Amino acid sequence: MSIVLHGVPIGGGIAIGRAHLVSQSMDEVVHYQLDESEVAAEQARFGAAIATTRAELERLTASVPDKAPAEMKAFLSLHVMLLSDPMLAEVPCDIIAAQRCNAEWALKQQADALVEQFDAIEETYLRERKHDVLQVVERVFKNLNGHGVELPDGDWDGELILVAHDLSPADMVLFKDSAFAAFVTDVGGATSHTAILGRSLDLPSVIALHNARELIREEEWIVVDGEQGVVVIDPEPLVLDYYRARQASWRAARAELANLRLAPAETLDGTAVELLANIEMPSDIDDVVEASADGVGLFRSEFLFLGRDTLPSEDEQFQAYRKVVSAMQGKPVTIRTMDLGADKNARWMSHGVADNPALGLTGIRLCLAEPLLFRVQLRALMRASVYGKLRILFPMVSGLNELRQALSQLEIAKDELWEEGIAFAENVEVGAMVEVPAAALVVSSFFKLVDFVSIGTNDLIQYTLAVDRSDDSVSHLYDPLHPAVLKLLSLTIRSADKAGVPVSVCGEMAGDLRLTRLLLGMGLRRFSMHPAQVLAVKQIVRGTRLDSVKDLVARMLRTEDPDKIADLLTQLNAAPGD
Amino acid sequence: MSIVLHGVPIGGGIAIGRAHLVSQSMDEVVHYQLDESEVAAEQARFGAAIATTRAELERLTASVPDKAPAEMKAFLSLHVMLLSDPMLAEVPCDIIAAQRCNAEWALKQQADALVEQFDAIEETYLRERKHDVLQVVERVFKNLNGHGVELPDGDWDGELILVAHDLSPADMVLFKDSAFAAFVTDVGGATSHTAILGRSLDLPSVIALHNARELIREEEWIVVDGEQGVVVIDPEPLVLDYYRARQASWRAARAELANLRLAPAETLDGTAVELLANIEMPSDIDDVVEASADGVGLFRSEFLFLGRDTLPSEDEQFQAYRKVVSAMQGKPVTIRTMDLGADKNARWMSHGVADNPALGLTGIRLCLAEPLLFRVQLRALMRASVYGKLRILFPMVSGLNELRQALSQLEIAKDELWEEGIAFAENVEVGAMVEVPAAALVVSSFFKLVDFVSIGTNDLIQYTLAVDRSDDSVSHLYDPLHPAVLKLLSLTIRSADKAGVPVSVCGEMAGDLRLTRLLLGMGLRRFSMHPAQVLAVKQIVRGTRLDSVKDLVARMLRTEDPDKIADLLTQLNAAPGD
Repeated sequence: MSIVLHGVPIGGGIAIGRAHLVSQSMDEVVHYQLDESEVAAEQARFGAAIATTRAELERLTASVPDKAPAEMKAFLSLHVMLLSDPMLAEVPCDIIAAQRCNAEWALKQQADALVEQFDAIEETYLRERKHDVLQVVERVFKNLNGHGVELPDGDWDGELILVAHDLSPADMVLFKDSAFAAFVTDVGGATSHTAILGRSLDLPSVIALHNARELIREEEWIVVDGEQGVVVIDPEPLVLDYYRARQASWRAARAELANLRLAPAETLDGTAVELLANIEMPSDIDDVVEASADGVGLFRSEFLFLGRDTLPSEDEQFQAYRKVVSAMQGKPVTIRTMDLGADKNARWMSHGVADNPALGLTGIRLCLAEPLLFRVQLRALMRASVYGKLRILFPMVSGLNELRQALSQLEIAKDELWEEGIAFAENVEVGAMVEVPAAALVVSSFFKLVDFVSIGTNDLIQYTLAVDRSDDSVSHLYDPLHPAVLKLLSLTIRSADKAGVPVSVCGEMAGDLRLTRLLLGMGLRRFSMHPAQVLAVKQIVRGTRLDSVKDLVARMLRTEDPDKIADLLTQLNAAPGD
Repeated sequence: MSIVLHGVPIGGGIAIGRAHLVSQSMDEVVHYQLDESEVAAEQARFGAAIATTRAELERLTASVPDKAPAEMKAFLSLHVMLLSDPMLAEVPCDIIAAQRCNAEWALKQQADALVEQFDAIEETYLRERKHDVLQVVERVFKNLNGHGVELPDGDWDGELILVAHDLSPADMVLFKDSAFAAFVTDVGGATSHTAILGRSLDLPSVIALHNARELIREEEWIVVDGEQGVVVIDPEPLVLDYYRARQASWRAARAELANLRLAPAETLDGTAVELLANIEMPSDIDDVVEASADGVGLFRSEFLFLGRDTLPSEDEQFQAYRKVVSAMQGKPVTIRTMDLGADKNARWMSHGVADNPALGLTGIRLCLAEPLLFRVQLRALMRASVYGKLRILFPMVSGLNELRQALSQLEIAKDELWEEGIAFAENVEVGAMVEVPAAALVVSSFFKLVDFVSIGTNDLIQYTLAVDRSDDSVSHLYDPLHPAVLKLLSLTIRSADKAGVPVSVCGEMAGDLRLTRLLLGMGLRRFSMHPAQVLAVKQIVRGTRLDSVKDLVARMLRTEDPDKIADLLTQLNAAPGD
């Protein structure tokens, strides 16, 4: 019988395929039922894991350095003893048989029971000994199969759907090139980093399913409806037919959008709008070309730094930037200098974990605190500048002094290249992100120093409202339509217009179809978004008459009542295009 | 010979006394030198700690429950073995003799050496065994003396000066009633929570001394100059005379300020200003009366919730609020509802640690997420309202909806009291903190719902600049004079004035003597600060001619260049009073 789960829809259409469950640790172990006939094999698999672990521990004991305290070997022998104890070696086998469950689940249950025994002990010191048991258990876990994100063996007749507890920004690098056709997670809210990641992968995905990993079995057929936020486990033939039809019509709508590729992005009254794309990796550039975007509005260069143990060299960075700039054939490519530190930490970063990383050493602050690393990036960027129209963008600028310091680092990089006789373009435009409230409030003072600005709405909203949108306990307060947010957006766009400085929006708001008309009405003419969103936004732009939205937007900006703003937005989006 | 250390001055005058070193863990163990004659006693002290620890472990082994895994006893026996091993039991004794240092320091050195040995092992699993050694070592530490913040035994001829690695907000509750006359810490910057705590305690204090705890010995004489940021260890008689003279003149200046107690707080051109006090505990009210403040502008009620294992009951809270309200004899007392969650966590709070607690469940958000707790506080507040002029202030409001929800909780509390026949004042004024940028930007929409607003500059600056001021890596960016901050302050004050709604500043800026004229020039007429700052601010108010500062302040608000703002501030403070 089918089971239907409801979560937060992240879009990306509909996928039908087989589940692949991943778990990173014992805390999120998967659970699935076995047929009676599979029990013996599962017990054998568990026994093998115990044996492998024992062999490992014995090898470790043999490798203890001579100079190490004698007790070290004694501790390891104790761990071998623990492993041979029936409570670890035998009870899980009984559980496998009794519950017909997988070995990981059986081991987890027994480990939980043991931990409970230890926790019941009042004396802290004794209680702490449970960690020895847990270390041994973790080791056995690692020796059981089904962990990590490796693809399962065997032939797959259908697409593969990733079922995980959560995904981190660092996972993105890994998944970009993987064969997964969709993903679902237990955690996340509409504004969580999981959601952002999902939208960015442009795969059918549903998050915040809470217990998908307990209900879905490995290799089971599931349907992921990223539009409605529905996951169907083991769908019946009729249900499957329904979703196959939905999938086909979704794909048809996509294909229809593709007809807009060469149509101009202009409103019904003839105002041209620039639609740019956000990318994370050089390989994303194919999607940008496919969407026929007007350029790259935001290349998040920090992704070059994630998921690896060493820093990318100047040359490696240069190759990456050159690839993107060349591929865009003269269209502008805006590359943001590494924005690491808040939620994206590279392994080589040595700065400890701050109490509030989002209010700490991140963006341009980190660049300026590590001038040598920053200089390497600036040199690589300038070297790539001769291959097309490259622009440099500084993240998280909060004041004039930071901007001056960043620009002086750029001058040093240029001087170095000059002295080394390395070519670079003289007229590279430089811009600042407006994502700290202070930057929006004093943005006109930036115009003397930069050629353009780009509004990062995700962070701007976060700081203006003091809400971490990936924090479930407050994410309901994260609101792009908060009157204070609209004021800062409008202020920034108007100030830039007045000064004749180009301004774009590159946060999630730029790709949110509900907000396209609002931003147009505020005067925005440059949108930068995920490549997959470009054509849909173009469709809305082409269906909008600026004259008929301006008045409603002006009224939205005059009110400070969230309910009225919501009403006006509904009217705005209902306004006929012609 | 005297040693002179330089740190960040926190004010509070000058103290001369004996050092008392405290350490919370092995990471911050103290170090002091012994005379040759003291070595044997120190070794004996160490031996006694080892023996005590061994006895404890043996008692523990005997107490292992029968149903516990057999390995548990084996682990404990291993710990006893470790303890008897010469590497732990004997080497530290040799170090005490060789270096003539205290036992804690000797043990720490040997523990560090052992950890280094383990860390050199490549295999993670083996490396982890070091925790067993560390657990045993920690236990020995606990059995050595000199830990915790208890006062040392014996007679003290002089004041006691606390020398610590750091102090937490929760320590404040502890120190308020302690006998310490001054404190110095290794960590902290001018804007850190340690600094704020120091200013709030109004004791001579110097922070960010880096290695004071290594250089200062227990019971040593030290001078703490909280004005210049200097600490002198073992001062020579001439130096001591100098500081005694400085101390006397500082006290004289304080006494002179005391003459201003009954003088009106008004500018030279006759504009009256309200000077209110911030308090944390009911017992602070004596200082408020002493300073002759015009009322309590901010009672940080969350301190009633800190440093304890259980929640304060409605009755306990009622008593606390009543005490303050009664003591102020009709002068206004503004009580902020509990502002827990960001940097102040009560032990009973079950919400996990957020990635960015300052952008998480804090202030009114936490109150609304825990309506039952919130209601208890609101009931206690309303019950106290009949004893004087009580006002209620909601922290961290970011939008209209939160404000509406908070007010509806207050209505529920009133209805409950009404039904129970419990008296409360009908006309209790309610206000909102303006400390989230969004609140400043839409403050005029609050005026329909509240009777007053209070600007919390500490948080407002933090969010506007996206800078956690207690984060050393970015605290240099925390700037009350950032043009964006001045804009939001000015906007809030002007909007409130226009609407005829009282507005006060209750953050650190209100008590900063460099900023008094700036705030006056912006139109602020209500300042709330630490009681110790009231008279000094009054002195500046009484020496200021509004007419002559307004023009300079207007120029400060027009520029967005930080350097020009700094110049203008210097001019502003140099402007003659008459």
